[in-house]
Amino acid sequence: MSEILPKTSEEVTKRLNKIGGQIAGIRRMVEEDRYCVDILIQVAATRAALDKVGRIILKGHMESCVTKAIKGNRGQALIDELDDVMSQFMT
Amino acid sequence: MSEILPKTSEEVTKRLNKIGGQIAGIRRMVEEDRYCVDILIQVAATRAALDKVGRIILKGHMESCVTKAIKGNRGQALIDELDDVMSQFMT
Amino acid sequence: MSEILPKTSEEVTKRLNKIGGQIAGIRRMVEEDRYCVDILIQVAATRAALDKVGRIILKGHMESCVTKAIKGNRGQALIDELDDVMSQFMT
Amino acid sequence: MSEILPKTSEEVTKRLNKIGGQIAGIRRMVEEDRYCVDILIQVAATRAALDKVGRIILKGHMESCVTKAIKGNRGQALIDELDDVMSQFMT
Repeated sequence: MSEILPKTSEEVTKRLNKIGGQIAGIRRMVEEDRYCVDILIQVAATRAALDKVGRIILKGHMESCVTKAIKGNRGQALIDELDDVMSQFMT
Repeated sequence: MSEILPKTSEEVTKRLNKIGGQIAGIRRMVEEDRYCVDILIQVAATRAALDKVGRIILKGHMESCVTKAIKGNRGQALIDELDDVMSQFMT
Repeated sequence: MSEILPKTSEEVTKRLNKIGGQIAGIRRMVEEDRYCVDILIQVAATRAALDKVGRIILKGHMESCVTKAIKGNRGQALIDELDDVMSQFMT
Repeated sequence: MSEILPKTSEEVTKRLNKIGGQIAGIRRMVEEDRYCVDILIQVAATRAALDKVGRIILKGHMESCVTKAIKGNRGQALIDELDDVMSQFMT
């Protein structure tokens, strides 16, 4: 069964490719012994990009799995599960 | 119309009272010129307590408003709205 | 011995007072059964205000305690301590 | 001039390699249409790993550049700069 909607999947894949490139860029900056603060700025940007991916997946999850579960009166389990995973994003 | 379930409301109020006390405690620490790092630790703890309140409200929102909206085929607007507010928690 | 510079202390106290008011405002919103998402927006704003307080204290700590320690060749212990407390802000 | 200490550089590179692998793993999970929540858990784990890299670089920066600058009475500029970059990690 398809969990992630195709448009979400495509956007997430594109963003993950870009994040992979950002990680490789940070690695190069470290190897080239670039200024720590410039590296930190790139780490912060990559972290924000990863958070955005998290939000897109979260939204897609609500539009597909959570919506289906609620309509089928099985919403509570998925809401509990979501609350659990949110604890890792909201410290 | 009641938006927040009574049990959620009670728990959130209790936690907000405690957080209010934590803020007052931090203010006292600053006035008493306590060690910065000890103050920072309290700031971090209060921030985590506030995130927990955010998660409880988020969960209550999904159990009440979002569930009702999805069952009434008006889910998308609330999911969009939620995605928007999450952008403030997931940097 | 004074740890926090007076200008930092004054600014932090002013901000903590405002945050205390924001917490009281959120409590009122919960009691008045306001819309969950409007409450969440206030929680996110208060969390950001608390993070800003954390940053001001952190900066003051570096300008006073850390600077003094480094000049006295006792910097490593404070850097280790700071790294430890940062782990609570940078998840 | 070497900015990052060799031991920090080596540890950061090792961690970035692992994070690159985690990103590739998440991309595979998306392609294989795995359950959204399982993907979200991996995103959260990768985000935490990236925060840890940020902390290691921050610590190395304090041990090298910031320490040198403070000893040379040029500390304030680096503290201001650090405060600025921290605003991207502490929301």
